[in-house]
Amino acid sequence: MDRRSALLAGLLSTIALLPWPVNAAAKVQAPPVERRVLENGLVLIVVPRPGLPLVKAIALVGAGSLVEDSGQAGIAALTARLLLRGTASRSGEQMSQAIEAVGGSLEAEAERDAAAVTLSVLTKDLRLGLTLLADSLQSPTFPEAELERERRNLLASLAQRVEEPGFQAQDLFVATLYGPAHPYGRPVVGTEAELRQLRREDIIGFHRQQYGPNRTILVLAGDISLATAEPIVQEIFGNWVPVIGPPWHSPSVSVMSRGEVRTLDRKLAQTSVILGQRGIARNDPDYYAVTVLNALLGGSGLTSRLSLNLREARGLVYSASSSLAAGRLAGPFQVSLQTKNESAGEAVREVVQEIRRLRTDPVPEDELRRVKNFLTGNLPLQLDTTGKLASFLARAEYYGLGLDLATRYPGLIAVVTPEDILRVAQRLLDPQFLVIAVVGDVAAGRLTLP
Amino acid sequence: MDRRSALLAGLLSTIALLPWPVNAAAKVQAPPVERRVLENGLVLIVVPRPGLPLVKAIALVGAGSLVEDSGQAGIAALTARLLLRGTASRSGEQMSQAIEAVGGSLEAEAERDAAAVTLSVLTKDLRLGLTLLADSLQSPTFPEAELERERRNLLASLAQRVEEPGFQAQDLFVATLYGPAHPYGRPVVGTEAELRQLRREDIIGFHRQQYGPNRTILVLAGDISLATAEPIVQEIFGNWVPVIGPPWHSPSVSVMSRGEVRTLDRKLAQTSVILGQRGIARNDPDYYAVTVLNALLGGSGLTSRLSLNLREARGLVYSASSSLAAGRLAGPFQVSLQTKNESAGEAVREVVQEIRRLRTDPVPEDELRRVKNFLTGNLPLQLDTTGKLASFLARAEYYGLGLDLATRYPGLIAVVTPEDILRVAQRLLDPQFLVIAVVGDVAAGRLTLP
Repeated sequence: MDRRSALLAGLLSTIALLPWPVNAAAKVQAPPVERRVLENGLVLIVVPRPGLPLVKAIALVGAGSLVEDSGQAGIAALTARLLLRGTASRSGEQMSQAIEAVGGSLEAEAERDAAAVTLSVLTKDLRLGLTLLADSLQSPTFPEAELERERRNLLASLAQRVEEPGFQAQDLFVATLYGPAHPYGRPVVGTEAELRQLRREDIIGFHRQQYGPNRTILVLAGDISLATAEPIVQEIFGNWVPVIGPPWHSPSVSVMSRGEVRTLDRKLAQTSVILGQRGIARNDPDYYAVTVLNALLGGSGLTSRLSLNLREARGLVYSASSSLAAGRLAGPFQVSLQTKNESAGEAVREVVQEIRRLRTDPVPEDELRRVKNFLTGNLPLQLDTTGKLASFLARAEYYGLGLDLATRYPGLIAVVTPEDILRVAQRLLDPQFLVIAVVGDVAAGRLTLP
Repeated sequence: MDRRSALLAGLLSTIALLPWPVNAAAKVQAPPVERRVLENGLVLIVVPRPGLPLVKAIALVGAGSLVEDSGQAGIAALTARLLLRGTASRSGEQMSQAIEAVGGSLEAEAERDAAAVTLSVLTKDLRLGLTLLADSLQSPTFPEAELERERRNLLASLAQRVEEPGFQAQDLFVATLYGPAHPYGRPVVGTEAELRQLRREDIIGFHRQQYGPNRTILVLAGDISLATAEPIVQEIFGNWVPVIGPPWHSPSVSVMSRGEVRTLDRKLAQTSVILGQRGIARNDPDYYAVTVLNALLGGSGLTSRLSLNLREARGLVYSASSSLAAGRLAGPFQVSLQTKNESAGEAVREVVQEIRRLRTDPVPEDELRRVKNFLTGNLPLQLDTTGKLASFLARAEYYGLGLDLATRYPGLIAVVTPEDILRVAQRLLDPQFLVIAVVGDVAAGRLTLP
């Protein structure tokens, strides 16, 4: 294949992924996103997207705060940050030097369900980049001095977090909703008391237990083909030894028996409110119906119901939005807003009113159509860079959704009916069970339970 | 041209832009980034980058805080935000509805030197998107209710800003360095007193004076060609009437006669420090030498001199970095760091020590090579999305740097010599003239003037 054809073939393979109709001829020509599983269990996904001589890589490892043992809140965050601060073959400083010398970037961070190491390099530096990435996952050394530095930095982040009313409300909300024993009940960065107590041995143990090829999805996207990538990945990652044991445990949590209002009194000009309930897991069959429900309520920008009511009609807020954080477990389905202290009570009552309406009144067809168009039209813009596409595919694989998810997405949204919306609203949103977290000048807020 | 050829031609036109060697054949085939000037002065730049059926647009208008009259700090920010909140043909709500109904996005924000309106849409919705964009620039109506809402929101941002030590140090630093009469001496969001006094008439006047086709650069990038774009842009923007008067005035500012330490005493666990001097304008011939100087000092990540000294060798900081904000006028060249209160004095002394060294000791060849590789290798990663490329080209045009800047950049960096570094360090960094802004527990910080 000459260079022109190779470019074109790669381009079409990208097009085949996209969530809009392409003609049949193009579909036949297009090699799909390719997936291989190494013998040690590592899943390799390659997405050719030529045009620029760059490769973006993401390694998603099942080592987020979800799998932290009790008493070790923050260990996932601390471990992930330390991956880049020294390995068997390079000190932290040497790793920085190696990647910065070619203008690339390598970053590591834990999230709730997974840890992610991301790499950007010119194609010519791919082997170097993947070697650094593999070292960071396979042979981090966790030097004491680096550990103390990263611990201090996480503690400083936590201290700043406590100053910020939006984060305070969020932390209060999830702590109330999930309780302290559930990993979704605290921020990924952990808690001060537990962060202070983590020892180097704990981190070595966490890494040994949670980081392994059979917990890792590696996506390479950009100026790359499976033919080029597979031998390099096999060579660099092939000897990594699998970990044993279940990838995660479901925490045993009590069912919420009633709603609760939690307030934190601070002399602030504005009140921050987060309210909601436990939502659903990412692989729940109702996921797409709840996605549409969320877009209707507050997830489609300035034309969602919360915006039209609280912002446009009543002028209570600058913005009010809702979000669904579906993960391995049922993450929160929540509404977030800021308002003047005096308006907090009214704002909460209006949100509850909108929730009631979703449970009782079928959604008008034209509103449903508008929201579906928003979701379907917006997806390509969410996948408009190679880095975003790599991240999307890693998560599609991680949650078992299929690598053709983007193509199927419009269909999954299209079939949602007004009856589905009523059903999932009744399932997930019940004013009696709402947890409401409020940070602000509470006396001025005249809050009353809805 | 059939579809395959069209795709390929577009792809090559993108490649021609890139800052690395391509073979001569590809260069000959590649149509360059194309540029047209409408009769009313609007500059249209089209960058075909096919692959996804998306277009990214940015309209850069010379209406940043740079051109605010005295007493009107914040008017650029307020005006930009109101562009999307109502035009002659649609209310703010209708504008949101129109763009959200197709899943696109339209945003407006003022920066220091310019205001930027950015658009993302599927190709099929390009006409709609450009119409909304053009309306927002040409016929905003600035309704009173929207004005009050955006004013309240900017005031709330300002109130939050004052809580955040990093922003406080930054604001104190630029206020001291430039004084209140200079637009670079305050944040773009303005000041509380002046924001409160802005009237609707002021905003209408600012818009009439500053927004015009002859102050506007419109870049369209993605699934688009000049042949398609030009007639639409001509139709939609062609009747926009130019503004008169000079695009900006150089503020008359005094030369700093000496350095100054400004402190703000707050009981915080960490001290935030910003120190530096006035730098250079973007079109200064020394720009590339100063770029290398900045990378050496603190602009190349964890392997710059500040990181190696303050972070690795002394453990004083988690990170310390330097930056150069070159604009129409000479923006600040500054160092930013956070440290324990007790270490603030030592950290500042070490920064000053590094500055002295840059003024006296020629940079070793291998260090210079490493830093140049960082800058040259990093540029493609800075331009790795269609949106970033559009923004880069808009700014290259705005500052008169040439649309082939990315191609010339490696050469401009390569020619910088150790003597150039000494010269620009002596020109721009003088310990006697440093402005040092400190926010933290000052008594504990044991600060002494360097």
